[in-house]
Amino acid sequence: METARLETFSDGVFAIAMTLLVLDLKVPPAGPDAPPLWPALLRQWPAYLAFVTSFATVAIMWINHHLNFTLIRRTDHTLLVLNGLLLLGVTFLPFPTAIAAAYAGHGERTAVAVYTGTFVFIAVTWNVLWRYASGRSGLLAPDADPRLVVSITRAYNAGLAAYLAAFAAGFIRPLAGLAICGLLAVYFALPTQYHRWFGRAA
Amino acid sequence: METARLETFSDGVFAIAMTLLVLDLKVPPAGPDAPPLWPALLRQWPAYLAFVTSFATVAIMWINHHLNFTLIRRTDHTLLVLNGLLLLGVTFLPFPTAIAAAYAGHGERTAVAVYTGTFVFIAVTWNVLWRYASGRSGLLAPDADPRLVVSITRAYNAGLAAYLAAFAAGFIRPLAGLAICGLLAVYFALPTQYHRWFGRAA
Amino acid sequence: METARLETFSDGVFAIAMTLLVLDLKVPPAGPDAPPLWPALLRQWPAYLAFVTSFATVAIMWINHHLNFTLIRRTDHTLLVLNGLLLLGVTFLPFPTAIAAAYAGHGERTAVAVYTGTFVFIAVTWNVLWRYASGRSGLLAPDADPRLVVSITRAYNAGLAAYLAAFAAGFIRPLAGLAICGLLAVYFALPTQYHRWFGRAA
Amino acid sequence: METARLETFSDGVFAIAMTLLVLDLKVPPAGPDAPPLWPALLRQWPAYLAFVTSFATVAIMWINHHLNFTLIRRTDHTLLVLNGLLLLGVTFLPFPTAIAAAYAGHGERTAVAVYTGTFVFIAVTWNVLWRYASGRSGLLAPDADPRLVVSITRAYNAGLAAYLAAFAAGFIRPLAGLAICGLLAVYFALPTQYHRWFGRAA
Repeated sequence: METARLETFSDGVFAIAMTLLVLDLKVPPAGPDAPPLWPALLRQWPAYLAFVTSFATVAIMWINHHLNFTLIRRTDHTLLVLNGLLLLGVTFLPFPTAIAAAYAGHGERTAVAVYTGTFVFIAVTWNVLWRYASGRSGLLAPDADPRLVVSITRAYNAGLAAYLAAFAAGFIRPLAGLAICGLLAVYFALPTQYHRWFGRAA
Repeated sequence: METARLETFSDGVFAIAMTLLVLDLKVPPAGPDAPPLWPALLRQWPAYLAFVTSFATVAIMWINHHLNFTLIRRTDHTLLVLNGLLLLGVTFLPFPTAIAAAYAGHGERTAVAVYTGTFVFIAVTWNVLWRYASGRSGLLAPDADPRLVVSITRAYNAGLAAYLAAFAAGFIRPLAGLAICGLLAVYFALPTQYHRWFGRAA
Repeated sequence: METARLETFSDGVFAIAMTLLVLDLKVPPAGPDAPPLWPALLRQWPAYLAFVTSFATVAIMWINHHLNFTLIRRTDHTLLVLNGLLLLGVTFLPFPTAIAAAYAGHGERTAVAVYTGTFVFIAVTWNVLWRYASGRSGLLAPDADPRLVVSITRAYNAGLAAYLAAFAAGFIRPLAGLAICGLLAVYFALPTQYHRWFGRAA
Repeated sequence: METARLETFSDGVFAIAMTLLVLDLKVPPAGPDAPPLWPALLRQWPAYLAFVTSFATVAIMWINHHLNFTLIRRTDHTLLVLNGLLLLGVTFLPFPTAIAAAYAGHGERTAVAVYTGTFVFIAVTWNVLWRYASGRSGLLAPDADPRLVVSITRAYNAGLAAYLAAFAAGFIRPLAGLAICGLLAVYFALPTQYHRWFGRAA
């Protein structure tokens, strides 16, 4: 089967998951006796941090999905199911983001573990999806550069290791777990060697 | 008419319905006097079960929709209306999922009946849509393999029977109704004979 | 300009507006002391009526949008703005639907007037959009059948008149206003002469 | 890389952000003892003003995105990241809209500053994205009219200046800041010289 509809559908899920994250930002209660708005908004800083981190991570995952499917030319039932598992992690993300937003300011270990653990789940499904697609002949484009394929595999291994580190760090210092996820988003947004490759290839 | 816009539109509805399911997961109230987060999250296990089951079912319905419309080449007004009825069931799903999430832990028969009943409604509309599309000449692709068409018809009959069984079982043991829906999602995710067919054909 | 991106974008808005309607259905509060679920669900019947009516109306508007844009081949800035006004009405719809769901059971004239008034607004923008697209040479496909164009114009005039009647009827008997909207959705779902035309042409 | 998937994905985000705005409109609490609905709805006028202004602004940004990407033919990693920053602003918009809806009626300077400040952020990212795309050879279509490119750059500079003016005005008179944003949406919806250009070119 062609990948066109898988891409449209995944685009929709990524777009909606990113957009629903904003619902986790709560408007402080208004009214004639309401306290000043500015400090009430500032107090919600962990919610903004979690929002921006989750948004950036989903945006970067979308970029990667996009890049991968310039190499993957065909799908089969297994790839559709693996892609569904990946999207399960993505659509779940607003929930741990809301938990982190509500609890991370109190230094809650569980909140950060749920948040970083979701990223670990997503990183695992990325690895499985990519290994399946790149390992089985017939799904990758015949002219896919083998060094690029290896380079992506390596990047996904590194990503999984980094999210496992964030997960572990969160048990020692909760905000450190969150901060690693935020830094990873910034790091992945920078043009890396494997992204430059696509720039050249395109 | 072409099926391209029907597919884009349906992709959107499937994607959003899957993504809205996460709104049924509630963050336990935070604050300085809040109870520990971990047990509060664990207590919501029926909500996670309902979320994953509904998500997986919509994901699999999307895969089926995708497969069907590789065979259906043209649409008419009746098919658009039948597709609308199917999407009505899909968009309604977050509501019974929320009901099941809130009430299934208390062993509520009504909650499970509404949940499994929604799947029965969806299974009925799938059957009607497929019979209409495959029965009337001109909508299927001229080269659609007649054995594959029969195989899909049979799979949809079996699916309807299975959801009716889940509906009935829910009146005897509520959680059994939910469990059958969960198992059906796992079963349909496995590559069946008729999915393998597509793999070969594609 | 081409109409492809206008269609994708509008498909997204229609799909999301339809799917958000489900958020107006409220789960009765659960808990050990909660009253029985079945009567609590039944008491919400105006919410289901409003949900199904709004869903069906948006679904049928999408079908019409789809049909119109098989005739409209080019867009310009004015058409994009008129299409935006139409989508404003469509995305607004979950709000009057929620109002009708909460208040129509109490026989509230205002709730029904807001609901039917939104449909009047949408019907007006449809008329303006279609008249602009069909009146100005260059936007319709050169081979668009002029009798079909006239037939659509007539159907939109009739639709506007019918929604004005629903609006007026709602001031006399609120539920009559809702019922007319529901019947209109059923009527438009039936294959009419002008839909059969498309069937033949396609 | 091609721009097709970037466009589909951005269409989805614009469509969802526009549609989620309706969730900021609150249904006044119903019940046998509820006050009359009509005055309760009228009292929410700042919420409707914020809803229509945000909706119109996103709709117009979508039109501009559409126009820009008829000129931009290729993407690279940097453009995807800049587009992601733009979409961050767009998906964030329901939050400041909700704040403005809840607080602007009380003349809250902070609420208006957050609202107009979000538009400033979006205007800055538009400028950066467009300068990157139009400045670096290879991303624009080879046959893009250089006078049109200059005309768009000028329009974006003017838009940024206007939103900075709205931001500043909001500190002097809060409702003036909102009103300027509303007028800007109306102004941009009118066919300007640079939009007429596209009409001619298309």
